[in-house]
Amino acid sequence: MLGRLYANEVCSAARTLEIVGERWSLLIIRNAMFFGMTRFTDFQRDLGVATNILAKRLSEFVAAGVFETRPDARSAHVEYVLTQKGRELQPVIIALTEWGDRWANPDGKPITFEHADCGGHVGLKAECKGCSDCPSPIDVTARADPRFIQLREQRRQRH
Amino acid sequence: MLGRLYANEVCSAARTLEIVGERWSLLIIRNAMFFGMTRFTDFQRDLGVATNILAKRLSEFVAAGVFETRPDARSAHVEYVLTQKGRELQPVIIALTEWGDRWANPDGKPITFEHADCGGHVGLKAECKGCSDCPSPIDVTARADPRFIQLREQRRQRH
Repeated sequence: MLGRLYANEVCSAARTLEIVGERWSLLIIRNAMFFGMTRFTDFQRDLGVATNILAKRLSEFVAAGVFETRPDARSAHVEYVLTQKGRELQPVIIALTEWGDRWANPDGKPITFEHADCGGHVGLKAECKGCSDCPSPIDVTARADPRFIQLREQRRQRH
Repeated sequence: MLGRLYANEVCSAARTLEIVGERWSLLIIRNAMFFGMTRFTDFQRDLGVATNILAKRLSEFVAAGVFETRPDARSAHVEYVLTQKGRELQPVIIALTEWGDRWANPDGKPITFEHADCGGHVGLKAECKGCSDCPSPIDVTARADPRFIQLREQRRQRH
């Protein structure tokens, strides 16, 4: 975790990035979520991340409630298992993947997401709960709660 | 950008994180996307990020085609405007926000997303293109293209 790095932010995206915005964080979560990884050595070998960094990330994730540990029946170590809080990061991973497929991966689509029940392709869509349209990005605006604008201003002045 | 930090990764999510995974990156994009910011001084003042870091991020974004510059009619500086490539990062920002609303922001929902046409609330949903269900995270699996598994293995052995 980044600590309260974005201290003057009240935005939920900023809060999320404090938990998952560090280098490797989302790749660790991706490996647990989609490749079923649970063991330290598997994460380490697959990602090639330094062991001290991996140990730090995993222990921060456990502290944040994104992973939980359980005894590993096959060794003296523990396994790291995503909690519901961790599993619900799935749209973040899918959104990153879809953008990367379109804009950053010249080789094509390395990974596709499938619905376990029917084998259909799963994708994200932005949907308006008012009219059920799927608005394009340019037609979506953000409305800030006035309470939070004030709170943010106060925090900014304090830092 | 992180350079080819995740060198042995072929995954699109990893490619995306090379472009937007650095500290501050997604908050800069959020401010441009939802608060209409275009000027260096506005980003700097709002985020409180060091000027050298902000300058580096913006110039990397321009190089990556996420922002483009245009002359600022009101000053001798340039304005930074999201390209289509940049605007299409919107689902990433919304996904981070929705997770943060639920799991990381005890104060509530600072920001909501609205459909400009009708004022309705815009949210993300994962949808199966096969059966039109909205599967929960646990019912979504990832299928890796065999070509890419091989490619990834080759890259890993090289590093």
